Amino acid sequence: MKLSNLYSKTRKSFPSDEVALNAQLLIKAGYIHKEMAGVYSFMPLGLKVMDNIRSIVKEEMDNLGSQELAMTSLQEKELWEKTNRWDDEIVDVWFKSELKNGTEVGFGWSHEEQIGNMMKEYINSYRDLPVSVYQFQNKLRNETRAKSGILRTREFLMKDMYSFSETEEQHKEFYDKVAKAYLNIFKKVGLGDDTYFTFASGGAFTEFSHEFQTVTDAGEDTIYVNKEKNVVLNQEVFNDDVLDLLKLDKKDFIKVKAAEVGNIFSFGTAKSEELGIYFTDKEGTNRPVVLGSYGIGISRLMGVIVEYFSDANGLVWPYNIAPYKVIISSIGNSPEVVKESEKIYKHLTDKKIAVIYDDRDVRPGEKFADADLLGIPLRVVVSEKNIANNKLEIKERIKQSSEFIKPDDLPKIIEKLSTNST
Amino acid sequence: MKLSNLYSKTRKSFPSDEVALNAQLLIKAGYIHKEMAGVYSFMPLGLKVMDNIRSIVKEEMDNLGSQELAMTSLQEKELWEKTNRWDDEIVDVWFKSELKNGTEVGFGWSHEEQIGNMMKEYINSYRDLPVSVYQFQNKLRNETRAKSGILRTREFLMKDMYSFSETEEQHKEFYDKVAKAYLNIFKKVGLGDDTYFTFASGGAFTEFSHEFQTVTDAGEDTIYVNKEKNVVLNQEVFNDDVLDLLKLDKKDFIKVKAAEVGNIFSFGTAKSEELGIYFTDKEGTNRPVVLGSYGIGISRLMGVIVEYFSDANGLVWPYNIAPYKVIISSIGNSPEVVKESEKIYKHLTDKKIAVIYDDRDVRPGEKFADADLLGIPLRVVVSEKNIANNKLEIKERIKQSSEFIKPDDLPKIIEKLSTNST
Repeated sequence: MKLSNLYSKTRKSFPSDEVALNAQLLIKAGYIHKEMAGVYSFMPLGLKVMDNIRSIVKEEMDNLGSQELAMTSLQEKELWEKTNRWDDEIVDVWFKSELKNGTEVGFGWSHEEQIGNMMKEYINSYRDLPVSVYQFQNKLRNETRAKSGILRTREFLMKDMYSFSETEEQHKEFYDKVAKAYLNIFKKVGLGDDTYFTFASGGAFTEFSHEFQTVTDAGEDTIYVNKEKNVVLNQEVFNDDVLDLLKLDKKDFIKVKAAEVGNIFSFGTAKSEELGIYFTDKEGTNRPVVLGSYGIGISRLMGVIVEYFSDANGLVWPYNIAPYKVIISSIGNSPEVVKESEKIYKHLTDKKIAVIYDDRDVRPGEKFADADLLGIPLRVVVSEKNIANNKLEIKERIKQSSEFIKPDDLPKIIEKLSTNST
Repeated sequence: MKLSNLYSKTRKSFPSDEVALNAQLLIKAGYIHKEMAGVYSFMPLGLKVMDNIRSIVKEEMDNLGSQELAMTSLQEKELWEKTNRWDDEIVDVWFKSELKNGTEVGFGWSHEEQIGNMMKEYINSYRDLPVSVYQFQNKLRNETRAKSGILRTREFLMKDMYSFSETEEQHKEFYDKVAKAYLNIFKKVGLGDDTYFTFASGGAFTEFSHEFQTVTDAGEDTIYVNKEKNVVLNQEVFNDDVLDLLKLDKKDFIKVKAAEVGNIFSFGTAKSEELGIYFTDKEGTNRPVVLGSYGIGISRLMGVIVEYFSDANGLVWPYNIAPYKVIISSIGNSPEVVKESEKIYKHLTDKKIAVIYDDRDVRPGEKFADADLLGIPLRVVVSEKNIANNKLEIKERIKQSSEFIKPDDLPKIIEKLSTNST
């Protein structure tokens, strides 16, 4: 992509109506567009980041043997009444509307009920278990307040996965595999060092549910970290009872702010009984399946990554999820500079390296400022002087200083930098 | 994928509550799941077909230089009032709901208004034009009747593209390129021979809009085809005035039923004026942009493909969009057969050929019937007899007879068959 062709231009200043840093930066850089409070569209660069995160998540879900599907936004009232989750007094984030014939419908804020109901058709015997399905789905939630940018919105992309097991043991085995897969994901998107598997208040039939919490001042949660024992508790369960149960001492924990980036949840058989998801076991007995639910908000995760990495100059993307790994910033528009820039651009494109070429006729200072604001991991500067010396100047977004390399070494160096970063 | 792991099983009979062939077949084969009238979820095989169609469409849109983005489902009332398309008396497919503070919101059934409004921020000068953006988006439409399976639903995946041009000439140039790209798409998904660029009743500032119509008895439209002159008119414009204008004779046309698979539309400057999308031209004059809109319903297109190709035995997918190109049907479960089947499965998987292995312990007749119902383009039969003869039996879904090949030739033959088919 040439930057002169990209319609989403950067702004000179922050939007005045946003308080969250992630929304301020993403709007200034042209990654997202605000439609109304808590409702954001994704512009080409923003969509590319989302797609990259999505690919990482998809790969891990596929490795678990989970099968991808796509459920609908439209939800049936009768179904959610079975589990007592239709009433606005009980679930306060429903958007609801009506079909022409007056039938009330809801818009999916979660899909446990719908997926459970659908799976009834396909689960009959223990031979059909365990099974797991997942989707990337646009959730709609009528949030009262939405002031955290893309961390909490009224419409967002979520990966939700559901597991159906014969027994608690079979469920536990899958649950633990998911926990590992989630940690892999957070590592791959660059948050590995500061994302913790966290005890939260329980599900049905289990003492605890689990969250994945990333340490950041932008977080809405408070967690307590015991580094030595590698145990992390969220505020709800940081009390004497739980600490006694885990045989741990309050004073060994430090308190930090964190943002939830994923959660995994055991429903036991409670919801299966309500929805009627039964199977015939080896002895021929009819039994309810054990249900698990596993979520990652893809757009929320993108927002946390922004909050976690960004600096005074703008966005900072890890190589793995950056919309482009490299930005070519040409200095001046002499024929030599244009020719060399085009050559590098073509060379990297041919090698399928995601590159954006800032071919605009603007001052070098503006190009550098935009390269920083956009957060592209590696900047390559092409100037007459560098060409004369047969050198390229490269600078990583996360580093203060640049270095000079031989032009031919560029692809190899990009490969090395983007591999090392994960 | 091994068929024993796929949770979405085939049914023995058609669902009793569907009148459209596409829904009957897709449900019987486990490709889709009905949530309520006109609302279908996509199971793994169905989602794979959708993803394959989507990739073909994406490639053509990217080749046009159009930039992919993702708008929201939630729509602002004030915006649609500007173009007089909020009122239910005027647009009768809105789903509407309310935010907590009582603000009315709609769910996107189209995105011209929202995208036009968003682009105002990025279009200032003639230097920003022409520009085009597109998305794959889940449209919600409150249809009164929805009895055509996935041809007309209350929720569906659509590719919608929008173009913004300086002049009618600039617009026309892009419009014509889109028409060609659309024909490429319909060719690639296998409908090329029977899909026509069709004159339909006009847009603002233009005599006609254009539709792409595929000849099929399942279609809701009637078109008139002049094969010799390669001119096709839909019913609305098949009248003496238009025929005179085009200097064509009524008697040279044949009447056929067809399904609309795409449409392209010129808005002129009418909508830009309503929404306030202006740019400064070379002379410094403020002018409204010329707007175009280009749609393909991805799930609808999948439904048309089902109607067009399916036969008495079930679905029939072209190689390009099939969920799997090959199905391995093993006969019996002797160690030799299992070993050979696993070997072929691994070999094709390693070569990144999409293959499904029917490893179930069921009769050959059931395996063959399911292979046909699922519509997988190529069936490979592994049996003790074939192994003894060092042969593989292959049969294309569209052919009546099978043939025998050397096992080593299989990847080459798959490659050849899937290339020839487009």
